[in-house]
Amino acid sequence: MRTPPSLLSLTIDKAVIHLSHISDLSHLPDHILLDLFLRTLKAGKLNEKVLKLFVATGKDEVLLLIRALNIKHILTPVLPTNFNLAWAIRLRTFERNTCCFWTPNKLLDLDIVLPICKMSQEYIKNSEVDIVIGALQADLSSFLNEWRSIISRFHLIIVQDPDLKEELNIPEGFDLNVYTKSDIDRIVGSFGSTFFSGYSCRYFGYLISRKKYIISIDDDCFPAKDNMGNSIDAVAQHITNLTTPATPFFFNTLYDPFREGADFVRGYPFSLRSGVTSAMSCGLWLNLADYDAPTQALKSQLRNSRYVDAVITVPARALMPISGINIAFDREAMGPTLFPALKLSREGNFRWETMEDIWSGMCAKAVCDHLGLGVKSGLPYVWRKERGSAIDSLRKEWEGVKLMEEVVPFFQSVRLPQTATTAEDCVVEIAKTVKEQLGRVDPVFSRAAEAMVEWVKLWKKIGSGSSPGI
Amino acid sequence: MRTPPSLLSLTIDKAVIHLSHISDLSHLPDHILLDLFLRTLKAGKLNEKVLKLFVATGKDEVLLLIRALNIKHILTPVLPTNFNLAWAIRLRTFERNTCCFWTPNKLLDLDIVLPICKMSQEYIKNSEVDIVIGALQADLSSFLNEWRSIISRFHLIIVQDPDLKEELNIPEGFDLNVYTKSDIDRIVGSFGSTFFSGYSCRYFGYLISRKKYIISIDDDCFPAKDNMGNSIDAVAQHITNLTTPATPFFFNTLYDPFREGADFVRGYPFSLRSGVTSAMSCGLWLNLADYDAPTQALKSQLRNSRYVDAVITVPARALMPISGINIAFDREAMGPTLFPALKLSREGNFRWETMEDIWSGMCAKAVCDHLGLGVKSGLPYVWRKERGSAIDSLRKEWEGVKLMEEVVPFFQSVRLPQTATTAEDCVVEIAKTVKEQLGRVDPVFSRAAEAMVEWVKLWKKIGSGSSPGI
Repeated sequence: MRTPPSLLSLTIDKAVIHLSHISDLSHLPDHILLDLFLRTLKAGKLNEKVLKLFVATGKDEVLLLIRALNIKHILTPVLPTNFNLAWAIRLRTFERNTCCFWTPNKLLDLDIVLPICKMSQEYIKNSEVDIVIGALQADLSSFLNEWRSIISRFHLIIVQDPDLKEELNIPEGFDLNVYTKSDIDRIVGSFGSTFFSGYSCRYFGYLISRKKYIISIDDDCFPAKDNMGNSIDAVAQHITNLTTPATPFFFNTLYDPFREGADFVRGYPFSLRSGVTSAMSCGLWLNLADYDAPTQALKSQLRNSRYVDAVITVPARALMPISGINIAFDREAMGPTLFPALKLSREGNFRWETMEDIWSGMCAKAVCDHLGLGVKSGLPYVWRKERGSAIDSLRKEWEGVKLMEEVVPFFQSVRLPQTATTAEDCVVEIAKTVKEQLGRVDPVFSRAAEAMVEWVKLWKKIGSGSSPGI
Repeated sequence: MRTPPSLLSLTIDKAVIHLSHISDLSHLPDHILLDLFLRTLKAGKLNEKVLKLFVATGKDEVLLLIRALNIKHILTPVLPTNFNLAWAIRLRTFERNTCCFWTPNKLLDLDIVLPICKMSQEYIKNSEVDIVIGALQADLSSFLNEWRSIISRFHLIIVQDPDLKEELNIPEGFDLNVYTKSDIDRIVGSFGSTFFSGYSCRYFGYLISRKKYIISIDDDCFPAKDNMGNSIDAVAQHITNLTTPATPFFFNTLYDPFREGADFVRGYPFSLRSGVTSAMSCGLWLNLADYDAPTQALKSQLRNSRYVDAVITVPARALMPISGINIAFDREAMGPTLFPALKLSREGNFRWETMEDIWSGMCAKAVCDHLGLGVKSGLPYVWRKERGSAIDSLRKEWEGVKLMEEVVPFFQSVRLPQTATTAEDCVVEIAKTVKEQLGRVDPVFSRAAEAMVEWVKLWKKIGSGSSPGI
């Protein structure tokens, strides 16, 4: 049998309903006042007048709770420059959940807030997203048809590998632009289309996009299914990852605290709970995972079947191998930070023969760490089909494996100057240090440093304008 | 229809079988030699003589592969001091998988090795583990009965909260020692049993254990089920976590590379693939998660139902909130690093009223980072039942939430001197710095620093000996 509510409890409930008629709460004992405040919040009855009433009591515990929940009087909000629909919705979502007042710029300024806001892609306009596909194979019909229900509402930028001579086979019903070698030559001119051969062709799409978000998936990947057999909307998940804050300065053991059903755990400092802007979302792979050629050659039967239902912010200063297979990023935040710079001498058209994304990813993580941006890893998965023979690649390409032994100590020690305040500055600074320190080790690094400087020039000329460069 | 094997392929297969009769391989073209080598490995035909045959060819690619796989001639192994059964088995497992030779001390020295070794608890003797339970409630019958099938083969140390006056109710059929207030007083003498009140009573168990591994689970937790409805053996998972290497210096996007079905991803440096000793395994919670009182009070319906099938090494220098609810550690590696030092003035008997584990965990992570040990988080989950009222606790305890705002910047900047080479040294150094820097902020930190120094003394006197201190 349920215990009947106490007289006190009923009185407090009654007080919540009639708060607007009460002019002074200061005579209430502390514990009743706190209870009244919590019930007011839960009942969605906190408005500006009621808040003033509680503040006027001057009671420590209530003031602390107000501060911890980042409840504020409405001010005319000074919107930050990157305030957008996502934040506006987050504001509303937050208000709906907590019925309290706050200024959105405080949320962005790392002030104290309980993360009740939940975001999903529906709040982002489809027109804010470009899906960039590098076409390494001519027949894209099965690829695009399998992705149709997920990507057809977005604009697609398809960049044909300049080395691929055949004409692309693209099914009807997509909003897309296709760029071929002649388009690349016409637009980048003297930079030459060799910059964009093989997997690097996608970077041409990154260069000419004018959208806030870019999502890019290799053309040998297909929509995956989760543990329940449901098809995964990788685009929606990437956008959720990018539009909810990241938490690089303290690890949350229950993974993404902004997901439905999760939160920050005990001990997580309140001042870090608002997080920072998510700049990159690195998705994963079921079936054929992104292993290197030696691993896959030695374990030829190895397939990834473990669906880990998590998104993690990779902590600041933790190094990681960012794969370009299934990736999304905030183009406005990342600027020219994703680039094709490190070319292996025997680079091929299979992922395990390339390092351009790993190198660019190491730079991107260093830039994000320096600028206080977040990088997430985990969901969404894509289903990666077989392509190529690891043993054949192993015969051909070993350089990448060896280079990482030099790359990692470099990035463990690299520090960017405080004067580097934009992604563009950071890339130029990294290029300079790479040339000085790694250039002595292997000429591939000098060439990478030069390509990074070239890339920033190209990006300034073509990529950074506000109107399409095409 | 399957393509029939080529004549070359058949020839290579034949050569694998007859390798022991071949005296020279140097005339073979590079690609055939490499193929032959890979097939020899896969067929388990690599022995010392055959290895010599391949090395004698002097071919770059084969030599590189031999190096990358850490294949070595058998030397009389110089065993490191912490070489134990786990490593011996890992050696055998590795050999079984790769049929090659290596010295175990090289694996510990971060030399190059492909992580083919898989470990599980069956290789650890049950006698190497103590399960430490702090009894905050007198009736342990349902707790122990629910855990019976998982923990009954291990030795249990049950420490009764000195503030708990009733006699414990413990069912039959366990190998255990119970310690009460009078035992604590007798053993720690002048240190006094107040050190060990409430949740801190478990630390008495950490002090007197002589086992290599300690596993500790709060007495309001029960075995959980995975997504398939199978009961989780939390002890087995903790031991697996502790006996497989950790990878704190580079983040592996496919989580624990040592798990069955997983590996290191492309771009992961080979020199870091052997990992480091795992010193701590921090498990998670289904149902009532380890949230703080404000979060749980505001989201009274919030329960954790997401089972994330992953174990992660928390990267070096990433700060984290280590919870003491469901934890395991290598006692030999951690020494006196887990201690009850930070006592809140209004600390209570509910987890959200305590900070002792969070504080000790911050210190432990700093020590592990300094000593090059790994901390893992994720599996296993336990099912945490309801206890206490978050709103009642919220009325009582706010100090912990406020302290974290001071604790985090401190640990972000703390650096231990190179002269601190043991866990013991590190704790003393941290205590010194806490006193100097945080002591000025709040006397609770000075008291914590003093308790840490006291704890190390106690640990030296009672805990660090090789025979039980009881």
